[in-house]
Amino acid sequence: MTPEQAYGWLKAHSIETSYLVSAAEVLAWDQRTMIPPKGGPHRAEQIAVLAKLLHERATDKRIGDYLVIVEGSPIVADALSPEAVNVREWRRSYDKSTRIPTPLAVELARTAAEGETVWEGARRDDDWPRFEPVLARIAALLVEKADALGHGGERYDALLDEYEAGTTTVEIAALFGGLRPALTGLLDRIRGAGASPARSPLVGGFPLDAQEAFSREIGAAIGYDLAAGRIDLSAHPFTIGIGPGDVRITTRFQEDFLGAGLFGSLHEAGHAIYEQRLPSAHWGTPRGQVPSLGMHESQSRLWENLVGRSAGFWRFAFPKARAAFRSLARVPFDAFLLAVNAVEPSLVRVEADEVTYNLHILFRFELEVDLLRGDLRVADLPEAWDEKTRAYLGLRAPDRRSGVLQDVHWSAGLVGYFPTYTLGNLYAAQLFAAAEAAAGPLEESFARGEFEPLLDWLERNVHARGGTYRPRDLIRATCGAPPDARHFVDYLTAKHGALRGF
Amino acid sequence: MTPEQAYGWLKAHSIETSYLVSAAEVLAWDQRTMIPPKGGPHRAEQIAVLAKLLHERATDKRIGDYLVIVEGSPIVADALSPEAVNVREWRRSYDKSTRIPTPLAVELARTAAEGETVWEGARRDDDWPRFEPVLARIAALLVEKADALGHGGERYDALLDEYEAGTTTVEIAALFGGLRPALTGLLDRIRGAGASPARSPLVGGFPLDAQEAFSREIGAAIGYDLAAGRIDLSAHPFTIGIGPGDVRITTRFQEDFLGAGLFGSLHEAGHAIYEQRLPSAHWGTPRGQVPSLGMHESQSRLWENLVGRSAGFWRFAFPKARAAFRSLARVPFDAFLLAVNAVEPSLVRVEADEVTYNLHILFRFELEVDLLRGDLRVADLPEAWDEKTRAYLGLRAPDRRSGVLQDVHWSAGLVGYFPTYTLGNLYAAQLFAAAEAAAGPLEESFARGEFEPLLDWLERNVHARGGTYRPRDLIRATCGAPPDARHFVDYLTAKHGALRGF
Repeated sequence: MTPEQAYGWLKAHSIETSYLVSAAEVLAWDQRTMIPPKGGPHRAEQIAVLAKLLHERATDKRIGDYLVIVEGSPIVADALSPEAVNVREWRRSYDKSTRIPTPLAVELARTAAEGETVWEGARRDDDWPRFEPVLARIAALLVEKADALGHGGERYDALLDEYEAGTTTVEIAALFGGLRPALTGLLDRIRGAGASPARSPLVGGFPLDAQEAFSREIGAAIGYDLAAGRIDLSAHPFTIGIGPGDVRITTRFQEDFLGAGLFGSLHEAGHAIYEQRLPSAHWGTPRGQVPSLGMHESQSRLWENLVGRSAGFWRFAFPKARAAFRSLARVPFDAFLLAVNAVEPSLVRVEADEVTYNLHILFRFELEVDLLRGDLRVADLPEAWDEKTRAYLGLRAPDRRSGVLQDVHWSAGLVGYFPTYTLGNLYAAQLFAAAEAAAGPLEESFARGEFEPLLDWLERNVHARGGTYRPRDLIRATCGAPPDARHFVDYLTAKHGALRGF
Repeated sequence: MTPEQAYGWLKAHSIETSYLVSAAEVLAWDQRTMIPPKGGPHRAEQIAVLAKLLHERATDKRIGDYLVIVEGSPIVADALSPEAVNVREWRRSYDKSTRIPTPLAVELARTAAEGETVWEGARRDDDWPRFEPVLARIAALLVEKADALGHGGERYDALLDEYEAGTTTVEIAALFGGLRPALTGLLDRIRGAGASPARSPLVGGFPLDAQEAFSREIGAAIGYDLAAGRIDLSAHPFTIGIGPGDVRITTRFQEDFLGAGLFGSLHEAGHAIYEQRLPSAHWGTPRGQVPSLGMHESQSRLWENLVGRSAGFWRFAFPKARAAFRSLARVPFDAFLLAVNAVEPSLVRVEADEVTYNLHILFRFELEVDLLRGDLRVADLPEAWDEKTRAYLGLRAPDRRSGVLQDVHWSAGLVGYFPTYTLGNLYAAQLFAAAEAAAGPLEESFARGEFEPLLDWLERNVHARGGTYRPRDLIRATCGAPPDARHFVDYLTAKHGALRGF
């Protein structure tokens, strides 16, 4: 077999696999939005059968054989060609899939499914002891998994690499290291500038259908193509890229608080814009895919925060919001802008503001690294959590539900995932700064309802590049420097300083 | 390998395949109800990849090898045991799948997809010459397919068997033979009894949301479990059995005519009730499946017509309809009942009433048999169609759109499918008569809103039996005699005689 034939087989296999993955995505979307109450057990089996099939395809021995034929051939001579990118990532996936023994993969999937169910009940009943044994089993399995995947002494590296390819624990620690003092310093200045601004303009009576229509209008305005998407309701908002022409988001509205649904919709629309602008000619291969969770999150955070909480954006959107919601009729622009930029440490990550959000992530990262190193036992997690909450946020949780039991991730075996949230924030600010350096002040265009200057820059520099670069390299290629927390701190300082006069 | 092991492998293979089929069903449902406008091309590819995978599974050589091991073994000694039923049907499917050469299957699928697209445009533009060439190609491919499947001289048998396993052209001809004079005779008596009753009580202003709520109420009342289903809107109503706990229907409402959405919903609910009451322990194997299209149609027609157009049913439902629709406020019960039982020959099959509907099917059956025998050329179809329309319905179509171009079936390669509609009507009447013989007069229970007597009888005698029997044998087992058109004629004569006093 020639390298060309081997590459052809690998590409066809990748695309066919991607169609099956995208079929599973339709099943997942339907499960969270449309499925009738009694349809759950059958759906779980459907998904399990597809997962089994996908595992068989991912570990097909022919992938290994054909990769050997194509690696080192002229096909992959140019490291940034689609062929070289695809071969690089197929190798990475194949090695990962085959390094984990099937019994371990099965046991992890089974325990994680159980973990999620146990966690749901334990959180509801504020019952840590019920959750502890299954989490201890998950942690032990993750240690096994990290060792099977391989690492250079730091187990966490192996898990992190699942979500943020090519980024190490040392790199994250360096990025996050400067962030903590910068954020707590900024928090002090914000608090020193006076009483926390009222969120009250966002609290009140916001009819659900008006919120839905407004989200649709704003989503379309910033570039989410609704002829190639849908907005539905679900308990946990998400974006799902089924394929070219079909990228759906979900959201959740609260009648008494505009902020949740509005910024949730902007966040998911940001994810969806990324998926919609991936290069469809490369669909089904790594070259056409988003390179990491952190990069994906950079786009959702960019539209949610750097655009969606900016003065320029609201000069465009506030008149529309007033037309949509009677309760905004007497709210002045400045009060509204302060409300969407309210800052106040709080116990629950998903309700945190833009500044304090990252403090939640920083301490989860430290706990996860310690767990994987064996320096922290699962049994000691609740106390460690409370201590970090005091140290980072100055708060004390009255219960486990708003403490160590608040997040689903660990119960589902997702360790190494949390840092990608903060990486997303950092990338977003760095990308935005680079976009402004290239395209001029963007807020002025937002104020006119023009988002093309930003969209075009992002499409050229991020979206169209798909999976060409690993995330750190993509930031370097796009911004001329590796990831750096400075841009995020500068952005926050400038905005909150302007809003509060420091 | 022992027969037990071979059977175990075949069963596991069947169930896993069924999960993939049911994943494809979710894709199909979504495609017709939820997909965004630009999502079509990607969905077509997704479905094609699944179809390819399913074809590979259906023709897996191991099926043939293992069937040989299990056939003739003690496992299949009792012909009505789940094991024997499954082996019987796996053999039938495997032989069918492997007899058709892959190039022919691919060419048929491709031409049928093209045919549907061409037909849509040709019907819209009333342009038979545009459709004729692709239909001629489809007809030639179907001749090839019938010969590949094998038959005893009557090609149509091979195609019919795809939709109504084990039923022959001769049997259909015999069943339909007596039906034509009986139906035209009944039609004469109905017309002799006076002017056609006005459909006017069903025509007027029926708000769409009230129709939707009413359909939901009536569907639930007759036994469609909405916690294990959904009702959505689609251009062409259909039922889809995704699996146990998830059987969905769609419908279409017209604001100016209550009949379309109401009886359409009852029809689909009938299909759904059947799917919901299949024996879930046998899901994924032939034993747990509906044995034929005709049997499926028997259940939709039974609920739509034998229940849904009966006086007893409306004694229960009319007060609810009046509460739901203001425009029924002054309509007397008798006028409403006559309106839902209006009879008048018309040109378009899907708009036909219960009596004349079958005349449409009878002549399509004759045309199809002649086409397959080579006694009729595709080029001569339009004239043959018009002649049959005059002979059977006494009507003359002003255009091709309401003539030979009206149905999608042939364009999609579905020849041998039409007879199952009339078989469904005949089975429905025969089953209903048997149910009344066993359970007493059912209309009295309908009038009290009680449908359990009928549901229970159907579940025991039809639904729970799944695919144990081929359709003719199921009628024999359930009604004590083979399919017979007499019950259908008796039912129509008795109802319309009572309504119109003859």
